[in-house]
Amino acid sequence: MEEVSQVAAQVTELAYALDTFYFLVCGALVMWMAAGFTMLESGLVRAKNTAEILTKNVGLYSIACIMYMLCGYTIMYPGDYEGGVFQSILTLGTGLLGSADNSVEDVLASGGDTYYSGLSDFFFQVVFVATAMSIVSGAVAERMKLWSFFLFAVILTGFIYPVQGFWKWGGGWLDAGGFLDFAGSGVVHMCGAAAALAGVLLLGPRKGKYGPQGQVNAIPGANLPLAALGTLILWLGWFGFNGGSELKVSDVGEANAVALIFVNTNMAAAGGLVFALLLSRLWFGKADLTMALNGALAGLVAITAEPLTPAPIAATLIGAVGGMLVVASIVLLDKLRIDDPVGAISVHGVVGIWGLIAVTFTNPDASLLWQLIGIVSIFAWVFVMSLIAWFVIKATLGIRVSEEEEYEGVDLSECGLEAYPEFTKAE
Amino acid sequence: MEEVSQVAAQVTELAYALDTFYFLVCGALVMWMAAGFTMLESGLVRAKNTAEILTKNVGLYSIACIMYMLCGYTIMYPGDYEGGVFQSILTLGTGLLGSADNSVEDVLASGGDTYYSGLSDFFFQVVFVATAMSIVSGAVAERMKLWSFFLFAVILTGFIYPVQGFWKWGGGWLDAGGFLDFAGSGVVHMCGAAAALAGVLLLGPRKGKYGPQGQVNAIPGANLPLAALGTLILWLGWFGFNGGSELKVSDVGEANAVALIFVNTNMAAAGGLVFALLLSRLWFGKADLTMALNGALAGLVAITAEPLTPAPIAATLIGAVGGMLVVASIVLLDKLRIDDPVGAISVHGVVGIWGLIAVTFTNPDASLLWQLIGIVSIFAWVFVMSLIAWFVIKATLGIRVSEEEEYEGVDLSECGLEAYPEFTKAE
Amino acid sequence: MEEVSQVAAQVTELAYALDTFYFLVCGALVMWMAAGFTMLESGLVRAKNTAEILTKNVGLYSIACIMYMLCGYTIMYPGDYEGGVFQSILTLGTGLLGSADNSVEDVLASGGDTYYSGLSDFFFQVVFVATAMSIVSGAVAERMKLWSFFLFAVILTGFIYPVQGFWKWGGGWLDAGGFLDFAGSGVVHMCGAAAALAGVLLLGPRKGKYGPQGQVNAIPGANLPLAALGTLILWLGWFGFNGGSELKVSDVGEANAVALIFVNTNMAAAGGLVFALLLSRLWFGKADLTMALNGALAGLVAITAEPLTPAPIAATLIGAVGGMLVVASIVLLDKLRIDDPVGAISVHGVVGIWGLIAVTFTNPDASLLWQLIGIVSIFAWVFVMSLIAWFVIKATLGIRVSEEEEYEGVDLSECGLEAYPEFTKAE
Repeated sequence: MEEVSQVAAQVTELAYALDTFYFLVCGALVMWMAAGFTMLESGLVRAKNTAEILTKNVGLYSIACIMYMLCGYTIMYPGDYEGGVFQSILTLGTGLLGSADNSVEDVLASGGDTYYSGLSDFFFQVVFVATAMSIVSGAVAERMKLWSFFLFAVILTGFIYPVQGFWKWGGGWLDAGGFLDFAGSGVVHMCGAAAALAGVLLLGPRKGKYGPQGQVNAIPGANLPLAALGTLILWLGWFGFNGGSELKVSDVGEANAVALIFVNTNMAAAGGLVFALLLSRLWFGKADLTMALNGALAGLVAITAEPLTPAPIAATLIGAVGGMLVVASIVLLDKLRIDDPVGAISVHGVVGIWGLIAVTFTNPDASLLWQLIGIVSIFAWVFVMSLIAWFVIKATLGIRVSEEEEYEGVDLSECGLEAYPEFTKAE
Repeated sequence: MEEVSQVAAQVTELAYALDTFYFLVCGALVMWMAAGFTMLESGLVRAKNTAEILTKNVGLYSIACIMYMLCGYTIMYPGDYEGGVFQSILTLGTGLLGSADNSVEDVLASGGDTYYSGLSDFFFQVVFVATAMSIVSGAVAERMKLWSFFLFAVILTGFIYPVQGFWKWGGGWLDAGGFLDFAGSGVVHMCGAAAALAGVLLLGPRKGKYGPQGQVNAIPGANLPLAALGTLILWLGWFGFNGGSELKVSDVGEANAVALIFVNTNMAAAGGLVFALLLSRLWFGKADLTMALNGALAGLVAITAEPLTPAPIAATLIGAVGGMLVVASIVLLDKLRIDDPVGAISVHGVVGIWGLIAVTFTNPDASLLWQLIGIVSIFAWVFVMSLIAWFVIKATLGIRVSEEEEYEGVDLSECGLEAYPEFTKAE
Repeated sequence: MEEVSQVAAQVTELAYALDTFYFLVCGALVMWMAAGFTMLESGLVRAKNTAEILTKNVGLYSIACIMYMLCGYTIMYPGDYEGGVFQSILTLGTGLLGSADNSVEDVLASGGDTYYSGLSDFFFQVVFVATAMSIVSGAVAERMKLWSFFLFAVILTGFIYPVQGFWKWGGGWLDAGGFLDFAGSGVVHMCGAAAALAGVLLLGPRKGKYGPQGQVNAIPGANLPLAALGTLILWLGWFGFNGGSELKVSDVGEANAVALIFVNTNMAAAGGLVFALLLSRLWFGKADLTMALNGALAGLVAITAEPLTPAPIAATLIGAVGGMLVVASIVLLDKLRIDDPVGAISVHGVVGIWGLIAVTFTNPDASLLWQLIGIVSIFAWVFVMSLIAWFVIKATLGIRVSEEEEYEGVDLSECGLEAYPEFTKAE
């Protein structure tokens, strides 16, 4: 009988390895979303602001990783702090690793409760934080000071995000109450949008975006293939974002669940794209590519709060509603003179809320009341804290570049180089 | 002894989980090929038609997913219909999932026959359909009406593709007869090329492509880095396309098979690229980048019909022949005044046929007769049905933009925006 | 008891399958790095040399795969030659595969020593070779003859690289002595940089790069979004590069190790980027995007020699030092009039050496002496052999394009087409 228990232990270890590997692959896909945001945003701004938004995106990702390592992860998951993953992360020395991540003995003794590497969890979580911060960079594009933005990235990824993340995923009061947010329509996407909205309100619109008689001037992006590429990168990355949030794949039920999440994620994006395209055709008379791209992203955001309980056709419809909402929201925000160059607040905020409400349609465990409590409390926390942070930064470093710098493009003033030196003339 | 059977059941579940995860990873790689086609085609058209081809590519992918969910999958795999995967896909409600995908009991009772999630199969299949349709968009670029194209996408992905897919992969008459097409040189690539050829013949060449004295005018693509990126994305995605088509990885023999498929896929692409580059150097005196890229794709198409039986050096040669064929075919089609802006008919059609014939060189189970029967019947079905579909669309909506729209670029007329507003002046 | 051994055999096969699949996924990520180098380099050269550098990148990757198959793998891993993987690779015929890769019997009898497909190892190794050669193409950009470059690629990937690879990873004298290089800061990155340096020295700087009074003229890259995309692609691919170099994932300890490697790889890149950005801000007064990108790559190169023993915060610091080093090195090389358009020698050579030395800080098994022996011997071998190869090529085919071709751009002379025909006028 000894041999049986030996084989059983091997099986437990193998399941741990599969779940860890699945987590790492999904995390790598989420990291890849950083490239998606980078391409999307660099395609949708003007050429003269492109190098700066590239710098913002690669910089914020790096800052997010460092801040989350230094304090964010501990704030969000305090239970893991003592001697666990955090020992691995923080210890400068070597040789401590074996004792700091899960030991074979602990895994075997846990009866299946410890089924993946603690560091693979950290890897997956850290790329999520960066996603939230990426949302901000698009909304404040073409007029914000680079280093003020980076300072805000430090605050959001190190403090504001982890606190509300703890409320839900760290086992805090929202989780206890019954708020449901599978992969983060609220915790990640609406969070990013709320921080972005606070920044945009303090920052004001780009020069020339809104005319004196209430007209809205289109400011076209310089490189739409990059915007399309960014959207498709995000689409791919989202399989990791939602698929990895199941946290486990190693038995029949879990494998089926992950498969359903992949299918639903894909269908929601497809539904969002098609319906945003149809609506833009009906409304504006043209098949507006940027609306279609934002429609796909809206579908993805919408399904993120609950990609597991809807059947695929329901996921398609949840995405389709998201896709239509985003078109309306982009038009509405322009009416309100809230200038969001890439539509990030609409995609991640408005549709994030839709996704959180849509949970109640397919998941019998959801309550509309707690979904609303979650929406209001996360939004309020992130928006108010961000407003304070932006306000302090504005009062000290300033947040907006000078009018001349904005006219010349922030690439020259902030980065000292041009993104496309041979394709355009300085205006 | 009970404990042994318990461990054995765990092992069966774990194998199911690994095969499902492998399938999902491969499916995600194939989905990524949508980005590859999007970048490839947007790099090879002129700037004034770039936004539209981006819209076509993201739109067709979404349409393919929705149509395949609604009816394509059922037509292609009728045996899976009753209560199986389709219940999961179509049921709007919730909670049915557990019963609709494979239950633990069924998996354990199947004796290894049920070894991956039905929805993971749907996910893998749905991204294949989109690949077939992507082939069409490149060939008809720069002159076709956007919404007519989308209508054709509905017909191809919902009906034409699934029928011939059933003939081979759904267990139909081609499969029964002995036609071999491992991952779809015929079912996917030649299918797409046949549909594209029908469209191109009805559509006619772009204005200015062919002169009155029989001269062929080069119409260079606007952004070759995107074309190179697209090719490399497709190369990466093809590991999922061919590697996932083994359907299983969870024992020594299957793992070895998947590894060989990865190696052969890579070597065939390398062989195709090098020999297309050499041939273009010898023939035209220049190392034509676009020929090299199409050579790599040709190598990939060529090995797709049988990536498992050739040794890697044979795979290299099969790809090399494909790479040389594609150069010759592109020149020949231009002689015939068949205007295919990206070379899709040559890459996927001519080389697809080569791949299907090459199966007989390394797979002793193949018969040349049945390979030819498969080629002729798939080509005939797809070409004739597509011709009818294009013809009806032409007679009703029309398929070609006006001469003025073509001159101005379809971006403005169809999408109402420009892909690179700051880099080019409207001609 | 028979049943127990049967289940145990299944578990062994399943572990073999997981390790093979993990290897293939990591290999696919490393192959993806080819796209990273292609985008990075095409973004950092001028428009008139873009098509040619694209051709170089896709060509060298293909050549590397073919040469490594034909002879490189055998030179580097002679122990695998007899009847093993090489039989699979070289045999033109069919049906030999099953006997050439590991059989089930051998796997079960090996007691865990044979735990992945031999061909998956070949796949992983072959994409590494291409990485080394990619490093060269950036450094010699904008002035080297295309076919001379390809000839050098044949020599480096078929002979020079495999010999020093054998010294370390094939079980040669450096390995026996105690030189440590986990994933190739030396064997891959410094190797590529040494070959590049030899080429650059014989080739000389680009016209106009250095003025007569010692001034250094910036020659800005034409398309920075592509450079940023390339960097992010490399960042993603590096998870496979370092993560796959653990070679195994299938038990608790190995899974933890792979997770730590993913985390450390990510943190080193983040540290490199942030500190390169800060240093460039302090030094030059601007947040130089290209320095930030090279900083991230430097962080990745720095951690590659030892991603397993440092805690994540130490990995961040190792990367940060790399990021600062690369800024200083790029400035210094320009002082020395060594013209490296993309900074490849600094990123992969200078920082590769730093990474190899940094191993001694966290890995108690490392000796500074053997690290230095490894650095000197690999550098000397690759540099001297490359110098000879470049010299012979220079004396025969020539290595530098004519002054007029350089002025007009190598795209026209070598490839006969332009990368961006509508965006720029020939100067």
